[in-house]
Amino acid sequence: MIAMFFLKFTAEGLSATSYLIGSGGEAVVIDPGRDIDRYVNAARERCLAIKYILETHRHEDFVLGSTALKAQTGALICRGRNDEVLYGDARLNDGDTLEFGGMMLRALETPGHTMDGLSFALYESGHPDVALMAFSGDTLFAGSCGRIDFYGEGRKAECAGMLYRAIHEKLLPLGDQAILCPAHGAGSVCGAGISDRDETTIGYELRANPWLSYDRDTFVRNKAAEQHLYPPYFRRMEQFNSTGTPPAPAGPKPLQPPELAEALLEREHYLIDTRMPTAFAGGHIPGSLNIWARGNTVIPGWLLEADRPIYLVTGQPGDVATVARYLARIGYDRVEGYLCGGFEAWQNLGMPVDHVGAISVDALKVMRDVENIRLIDVREPHEWQKGIMPGAGMRFLGTLKDNLPDAPKDAPIAVTCNVGHRGSIGASILKNAGFTNVYNVLGGITAWKARGYPVVIPENKD
Amino acid sequence: MIAMFFLKFTAEGLSATSYLIGSGGEAVVIDPGRDIDRYVNAARERCLAIKYILETHRHEDFVLGSTALKAQTGALICRGRNDEVLYGDARLNDGDTLEFGGMMLRALETPGHTMDGLSFALYESGHPDVALMAFSGDTLFAGSCGRIDFYGEGRKAECAGMLYRAIHEKLLPLGDQAILCPAHGAGSVCGAGISDRDETTIGYELRANPWLSYDRDTFVRNKAAEQHLYPPYFRRMEQFNSTGTPPAPAGPKPLQPPELAEALLEREHYLIDTRMPTAFAGGHIPGSLNIWARGNTVIPGWLLEADRPIYLVTGQPGDVATVARYLARIGYDRVEGYLCGGFEAWQNLGMPVDHVGAISVDALKVMRDVENIRLIDVREPHEWQKGIMPGAGMRFLGTLKDNLPDAPKDAPIAVTCNVGHRGSIGASILKNAGFTNVYNVLGGITAWKARGYPVVIPENKD
Amino acid sequence: MIAMFFLKFTAEGLSATSYLIGSGGEAVVIDPGRDIDRYVNAARERCLAIKYILETHRHEDFVLGSTALKAQTGALICRGRNDEVLYGDARLNDGDTLEFGGMMLRALETPGHTMDGLSFALYESGHPDVALMAFSGDTLFAGSCGRIDFYGEGRKAECAGMLYRAIHEKLLPLGDQAILCPAHGAGSVCGAGISDRDETTIGYELRANPWLSYDRDTFVRNKAAEQHLYPPYFRRMEQFNSTGTPPAPAGPKPLQPPELAEALLEREHYLIDTRMPTAFAGGHIPGSLNIWARGNTVIPGWLLEADRPIYLVTGQPGDVATVARYLARIGYDRVEGYLCGGFEAWQNLGMPVDHVGAISVDALKVMRDVENIRLIDVREPHEWQKGIMPGAGMRFLGTLKDNLPDAPKDAPIAVTCNVGHRGSIGASILKNAGFTNVYNVLGGITAWKARGYPVVIPENKD
Amino acid sequence: MIAMFFLKFTAEGLSATSYLIGSGGEAVVIDPGRDIDRYVNAARERCLAIKYILETHRHEDFVLGSTALKAQTGALICRGRNDEVLYGDARLNDGDTLEFGGMMLRALETPGHTMDGLSFALYESGHPDVALMAFSGDTLFAGSCGRIDFYGEGRKAECAGMLYRAIHEKLLPLGDQAILCPAHGAGSVCGAGISDRDETTIGYELRANPWLSYDRDTFVRNKAAEQHLYPPYFRRMEQFNSTGTPPAPAGPKPLQPPELAEALLEREHYLIDTRMPTAFAGGHIPGSLNIWARGNTVIPGWLLEADRPIYLVTGQPGDVATVARYLARIGYDRVEGYLCGGFEAWQNLGMPVDHVGAISVDALKVMRDVENIRLIDVREPHEWQKGIMPGAGMRFLGTLKDNLPDAPKDAPIAVTCNVGHRGSIGASILKNAGFTNVYNVLGGITAWKARGYPVVIPENKD
Repeated sequence: MIAMFFLKFTAEGLSATSYLIGSGGEAVVIDPGRDIDRYVNAARERCLAIKYILETHRHEDFVLGSTALKAQTGALICRGRNDEVLYGDARLNDGDTLEFGGMMLRALETPGHTMDGLSFALYESGHPDVALMAFSGDTLFAGSCGRIDFYGEGRKAECAGMLYRAIHEKLLPLGDQAILCPAHGAGSVCGAGISDRDETTIGYELRANPWLSYDRDTFVRNKAAEQHLYPPYFRRMEQFNSTGTPPAPAGPKPLQPPELAEALLEREHYLIDTRMPTAFAGGHIPGSLNIWARGNTVIPGWLLEADRPIYLVTGQPGDVATVARYLARIGYDRVEGYLCGGFEAWQNLGMPVDHVGAISVDALKVMRDVENIRLIDVREPHEWQKGIMPGAGMRFLGTLKDNLPDAPKDAPIAVTCNVGHRGSIGASILKNAGFTNVYNVLGGITAWKARGYPVVIPENKD
Repeated sequence: MIAMFFLKFTAEGLSATSYLIGSGGEAVVIDPGRDIDRYVNAARERCLAIKYILETHRHEDFVLGSTALKAQTGALICRGRNDEVLYGDARLNDGDTLEFGGMMLRALETPGHTMDGLSFALYESGHPDVALMAFSGDTLFAGSCGRIDFYGEGRKAECAGMLYRAIHEKLLPLGDQAILCPAHGAGSVCGAGISDRDETTIGYELRANPWLSYDRDTFVRNKAAEQHLYPPYFRRMEQFNSTGTPPAPAGPKPLQPPELAEALLEREHYLIDTRMPTAFAGGHIPGSLNIWARGNTVIPGWLLEADRPIYLVTGQPGDVATVARYLARIGYDRVEGYLCGGFEAWQNLGMPVDHVGAISVDALKVMRDVENIRLIDVREPHEWQKGIMPGAGMRFLGTLKDNLPDAPKDAPIAVTCNVGHRGSIGASILKNAGFTNVYNVLGGITAWKARGYPVVIPENKD
Repeated sequence: MIAMFFLKFTAEGLSATSYLIGSGGEAVVIDPGRDIDRYVNAARERCLAIKYILETHRHEDFVLGSTALKAQTGALICRGRNDEVLYGDARLNDGDTLEFGGMMLRALETPGHTMDGLSFALYESGHPDVALMAFSGDTLFAGSCGRIDFYGEGRKAECAGMLYRAIHEKLLPLGDQAILCPAHGAGSVCGAGISDRDETTIGYELRANPWLSYDRDTFVRNKAAEQHLYPPYFRRMEQFNSTGTPPAPAGPKPLQPPELAEALLEREHYLIDTRMPTAFAGGHIPGSLNIWARGNTVIPGWLLEADRPIYLVTGQPGDVATVARYLARIGYDRVEGYLCGGFEAWQNLGMPVDHVGAISVDALKVMRDVENIRLIDVREPHEWQKGIMPGAGMRFLGTLKDNLPDAPKDAPIAVTCNVGHRGSIGASILKNAGFTNVYNVLGGITAWKARGYPVVIPENKD
Repeated sequence: MIAMFFLKFTAEGLSATSYLIGSGGEAVVIDPGRDIDRYVNAARERCLAIKYILETHRHEDFVLGSTALKAQTGALICRGRNDEVLYGDARLNDGDTLEFGGMMLRALETPGHTMDGLSFALYESGHPDVALMAFSGDTLFAGSCGRIDFYGEGRKAECAGMLYRAIHEKLLPLGDQAILCPAHGAGSVCGAGISDRDETTIGYELRANPWLSYDRDTFVRNKAAEQHLYPPYFRRMEQFNSTGTPPAPAGPKPLQPPELAEALLEREHYLIDTRMPTAFAGGHIPGSLNIWARGNTVIPGWLLEADRPIYLVTGQPGDVATVARYLARIGYDRVEGYLCGGFEAWQNLGMPVDHVGAISVDALKVMRDVENIRLIDVREPHEWQKGIMPGAGMRFLGTLKDNLPDAPKDAPIAVTCNVGHRGSIGASILKNAGFTNVYNVLGGITAWKARGYPVVIPENKD
C-alpha cells in the first residue's frame, strides 16, 4: 500500500488555502501562493518530487506562485482554459486525468466564479469510482460558495446559474463521502459567510450549507443579490496571475529614527504603523496609517498604490518580516525600510508624536448623547445591513480617503467598525486628511451590542 | 460563528492517534497518550480550556495520559463502563452527550474490540442532526477494523458479531458525510491492514473498506480467522490504564565508555543499539540488541522485561531523547544511561567490538544454493502466510529467544524479515544466545521478491 | 588536547549571568538561576556530566537553582562559608581547588559585596600558573564593581575596604590576560554603571574601569558615597537562597474575559498589564498595573507582595510564559491566570475600559508652561542627581504607593522617568490610588534632553 | 553607554571563524563565509546596519562571502593590498582606522601567512589607547600560528620571519588584555596544533603558546620545518576569492533508487556515502566513496574534481542539506541529487550491494600476526611522525588514488588512520580501484594505542 501524505497551507488573513498531496514519491500542489518555500520544503522533507502544479482558476486576491514553483522543481503547470493566462504546460478539459504515485486527479470544469474555474476530484488508483477528496477552488466553500460578480452586473445571473450547475452537476455527484477542500476559508473576500471550520465533506455541506438547500432560481436570485466589494488590487493580481510569479522583493532595511525621518521627507510614500489601535492611540508618528499587523494581508489592497515605497513601524521586531510577507502576497513589493526599535526609539529622541482618541462604547454613548459627536462606520455594506449604531454615517474604509466627512476639520468625529481595527485605520486616514479631533471606538459594534445598546438597520448607505 | 480547531496527534510507530478539538474557548482531548505536553501546549497556544478527556476504551498498546492531563488541566475524564478502570469522572452510556464551546459530542457504545468500547460523533450545535466527525476508537479504521481476540479464542465469534453490529448499527448510520477519525493508523498492532492514509469518511470506507462489503456471517468468519499476536506488554498496559498514568521517568544519564562498561557488569540489563542494521553489522558492543530507533515504539514490548535497566547506544545524539520517549510510551521507564559519543567513542578506546554479517539477497541466494546456509524468517504468522523464501524456518521474533534454532552454535545462520530491521534484531538475539556465525539479510523478503526470486506459501508454521 | 566548551547564560533584565564550562566530559556550572533546564540541556547536548555547582555568594536578586540542579544531576554544590545557607556539599576556603576534565578552578575569597563572596580562577591543567578566566561574582564587573551596602550604613567603609582588597589582592594578581566573567552585566541592581559590553579581561578593566584607577582611600570614599536602593524582595531572595530552590510554580490558566472579571472580584490580587505604555494609555482594564513585559524581571520586587495571586494581560500570547518565568526568577510563583485574547477580547465585550494620558515632551512643556501641570519623576536618586526636569517632584517608583503626591485627586499630574516605562507604572499606581487625571511622559527625560529642554540638578530629594 | 554586541560564527570542520561586532546601530563583519544569511539575520534581529566587511586575507580554504554580503547589505569591503583580488572598496594600510557605532578598528599589517595579511585591533572610542580585542586572521591562533609555506619552499624562512615580526611587533604590543579572535580554531588546515578552545587573550597566548616562547631564529627554524599539505582545492579557492562569491548552487534533487541508478550510468560523477564507516562496511552502493558527513567540510578538496556531478547517500534525511552546504563552502556546487530513503531504499529493491570489512584493532593485531595482512596508514605525514603501527605502509589519503598499493587485487589489505573515518574513505578508494579484500580499522591508531599495542616512529615516509 502506498502512503498518502496530505498537507494544507493557509495564508492567514487572506484565508487562501493551498494543498500538497504526496503519494509514492510524487506530489501535486494545488493553488500555490507566492511563498513557495513552504511547498518545496515539505516535499523535500518527505523526498517527494512535485510532478504537477494545479490551478483551480486565475485567482484575483493573491499572487500565485506557480511559475516560481515550476522554475524550482520542474513540475508541470496544469490549469483550465483562459486566453489571458500566458503560462501553463497543459490546459485541462472536463474529465482529463492526471496520475501521480498511485493516485489520480480528475479535472471538473466548474465555471461561475470565473470562466476558467476547475475543480479536481482525487481518487486512489485502487478505487477509481469513489472520490476521496474534492478540491473545489472558489466554487464551493464550507457553508458558502463563490462570488459571481466578476463579469459585471449584467452577467451575474448567468454566472450564478453556471455556479449552480457546477455545484449540482459536478461536485455533488462526487458523493457525500468526498472530503471537501476549497481554496478559501472564513474571512476570504472571495465568498461571504464562509464557515470558520476547515473540516467538511460534500455530504456535510449538502445538509449544513444553506446555499445547497436552494432550488436553482432561489440560488440565482440570492447569489445575484449578494453585495461584494472589488478592491482595486484585484486588477493587479489578475495581471500578475496572467504572466507568472514576480521575482521576490528585497527585504526592508533597518532605519534609525533620523534615517526614517529623512526618508519620510520624500513624497509619495506610506508609513504603516502595525501596532494595535490602543498603542496607536497612545502615540504614533505623524502621517502614519494604522493597519494592525494581520490587517496587512488584505486591507492595503484598498488603500495603497503599488508603486510607492512603504515604511513599517511595528510593535514587535518579528512583525517586520511577517508584514512584509503579507504585503508581498498581494503584490506590494516596495517595503523599503522599518524603524529600528519601533515607536519607542522615535519617542525617546523627542521626535514629533501624534495621537488619536480611543474610546470605549460607554464613552461613545455619552459623547453621542451629550456632545453629539459625529460618528462614522467604515465597515462594508453587507455588515451595515445587519445593523449600525443609530445615526452613524456609513463610509466604507476602502474609499474613505476620497469620501471624507463633510464636517469642519476640528469637529470631533468617532470612527467605528466591527471591533476597532478598521476604525483605527479610518481614524488615521482622517487624521492624515487634516481632521484634528478623531476617535476610534474600541470594540466597535461588537462591544456596543454586548452592552445592549440599540442598533438600527440602515435604509440605504451614506 | 465559532471557530473550530482540530488537531491530530500521531505517536509514530505505535500509529496511535489522539485528537484535540477546540471551539469557543473550550476543548476536548480524545485518547491522550502519555506525553501530555503536546495537548497542553496546543491548548495554551490557542487559549483553550480543556474541558473533557475522552477515552474510546482502555487501550492495550500504550500508556494513556488521561489522569496526568486531568491533574494539569482539571478536565473531566469521561469513558465507558469498565469495572477494572479505577479512575474517571463520568461513565458514559449510549446516547450521552457532552457540550463544549458550541459543539456537541454524542457517545456511541461500540463494543467488540473491547467490551468498554465507545465511539463519539461530533456535531455543530447548529446542525445537531448531521454528524461532522466520527471518532471510532479501535472499532473502525481506514481500510480495516479492530481485532477481536482479546477475550480468548472462545469468544472471538461473539466479539466479531458485536463489532459488526457496532459498525453497522452505530457508525454507518452516522452517514457518509462524517469524517472518520480512528484511534490508529497503518502499522498498528490493533488492526491488520490499516490503510496508509489518514483522510477518510464513513462513506469512503463504506465503498473502499473490504470489511464493510461483507455480510454479517462472512465478517464474523473472516474476523475470527484473523491471526493476531499478543505481546506480553499488553498486560502491563492494561494495568497502567486501569490505575492511571505513571509518573514521568527521569532522563537517561550520559555515560563515558568506561562508565558504560562498568554499568554492563551488573546483571540483568538491556543494551539497545538503535543504529540501522548495516551499522550494527559493521561493529557493535558485544551483548547489545539491535533495535533500530523507531522500532523501539513497539518491539521492546515483546522482548524486554520492564523492571530491568536499559542502556542506549544511538547513531545520533538526538535519538536518545526520542527513543527514551518511545520506550516511556509503552511503559519502559528504566532507561538509565546512554553512551556519550555513540559506538565510535567505544571503538576509539579499543574496547571489545563484535559483528554480525549483513548480506544482500543475491549473496543469500548463493549461500543458500552453494553453502546451504540455514535461514530463519522472524516475521509474524500473517506475513509468512503471504510467502516465505523456500526452506526458511519460521520463528517469530517475539519468542525467538525461547525458541532458538536447533543447530550447532557455529553453524552459519541467516535471519530474514520484511526489509532487514527485525532480521538484525533476530541476529543480535542469536548472537547473544551464543551463535557465532549469524547473518542479517538486507532488504529481506522485499528485496528477494524485487529480484524475482521464488517464494513459497508455507503449509504451517515451524 | 581536550576540547573546552564555554557557555554564558544571561537572565535578561536581571542581567544575571551564569556560566557552564565543559571539558573532557565533565562540566561545572557557576551561579545557576532557577530555570535549570538551560544547563541540563546544554550539558546533555554535549554529553557533559555536571560535576560541580559553584556559587560566588548568596545572591540577593534572584532565586538560585543550585539545589534543583543538584537534584537532577547529582552534582556537588560548592560555595563559601555562610552559616545561614543550609545546603551545600563543600565550603571552600581561599586556595581550594576543584578539578574537572583536565581543567582546574581555584577558589579566591573575595568578600566585600557579601561576606561569603568567592571568586574562581580557571586554569588549564597544562598551564597551572596562568589563569585563563576569572569568575568574579559581584566583586568586579565590566566598568564597575559590587555594591557594599548590604551590612548597613555603619559597615560601608569596612565592606568597601574589603572589596578593594579583594580586587587588588585577589583578582588583579591573576594577570591582565585573564578573561573576566562577572555575575552581572549592565542594568543589574547589584552594581552601578556596569558597562553594556560582555567581553572584557582583567587587563582591560585595569585600564578602562574607573574604579581600578582609584587609590584605596578614594575607592572607599566613593564606594561609601554610592546610593543604592534595597528592594523589599531581596530579603525574600536571601531566604530562598539559604534553604534551596523552591519547587517550580504551575503555569497560569487561560481565562476568558468574564472569568477574569470574576477572579478580580476577589480581593488582594495584582492585575499586571505587560503592554507598552502607549497601548496602556490607549485603553486598559481598570485597576491594572502597567509593568511592561521585560520590566517584570525586577520591578515587581518593589511593588508586589509575594503571597497574592497575579493575573496577566499581555500584548502577545507568547509573553505569558516569558513574564511568568521572569516572575518566578524573583520568587513570584502565584501567577494564576492570564486573559485569553488580551485586552482586545476584553474591550470587544464592552467591559469597562480605563485610560491614562500619554504625552510627548513637547506637549509636557506646553502643559507645564501653560497649565502648570504637576510633574513627578519616579526614577531612582542616583538618576535624579544627574538632572531632572525643572520643578519635578521626586518620588521613587518603589515607594510611590505609600508616598502619594499631595494634590487633589482630580488635579492633572504627569509622571516621568527615563524613557516612559516606569512613568507608566507610576501613572497606573496613581490611577489605582484614585487620581483621575494622570499622564505618562513618552520618552521621559531622555526625550526631554534630546529636545534640548533644560534640566536641573536637584539639591536634595523630595 | 552604547551596547556592544559580539557574535562568533564557526564553520565546523573547516574550523573557520567569522565575527560580527555591533555597536550603536552599526556592525562590521570579519571574514564572512559563503552562507551569508547567518550575518544578515543576526544583524537584522538586532537592527544593525552592516557598515564594513573586513577580510584578514585572501583565504585559501573556503569561499569568502564578501561580495555576496555587500550585494545584500551595501556594506563596504575593506582589505589589504593584493593585486590579484579584483574586488573591494578600500585597501587598508597599517594604522588605518574604521569607525562604527562608537567603536574603532585599527588595521595592522601582519604578512607572513600571506602577503596581504591584515589583523585588526578593536577599541572603544572612550578608550582609544587600550585594545579590547585583536582579530588576528591566520597570523596567531590559540596555541599555534599560521603556516608560512604558500610561497614555496624557497621563501619559507622569509615568510616565517615576517610572521614572527607580525606577531611580536604588531600583535603582542596590543597588550596582554586584548581578547584574541583568530580566523581558525582547532582542526584547521591553516595551522598545526591549534588549541581546542575558543577563549584566549594575547596575554594568555604569550604564556601558554609555545610559538611565543621561541626567539626569532628558533621560531623561523621550527616554522620552516613544519610540514603542511596543500590540497588541490586551495588553488580554486584563491580564484574564487579573487573574483568574488560565486552564485548559490541549486539544491540537490530527490532521486528514487532507480533514478539514481540511471544517473550513475553517466560517466564522471561522484557518489558520496556520508554514513559512518560501520554502516558503510555493513552495506553500500558499489562505486561509492565513504566520506562521513562532517568529513565533507574539507576532504573533498583533496579527492574531487569540481566540475563533476555529485550524488549523496546519507544516513539522515537532514544530512543532505548539511553536506551540500559543506560542499558549497569549499566550492563544490554540483551536488545534483540524493537518494530518497537512503541506502535502505536501495537495498530493499534488491539492487547491488557491496561491502568492506570493518575490524577492531584486536582483530587487526591477529590478522597482522597470523595472516600477515597488508596495512596502509592514510594519515598525513605529520601524524605519521608521531608513530605508526609497525609495518604500516604510509600512503596519504589525498593522493592514494594515484599511489595505489603494489599488491595483487585480491590480497587482503587493511586501511587505518586516526579513528577510522579516513580509513573508510581509503578503503572505498581501494575498492573502487579494484581491490576486493579491503578492511577499515575501527578506532585506528587511537584504539591501537589505547590497547597498549606498540607504535614505531617511521624513518621516512613511504
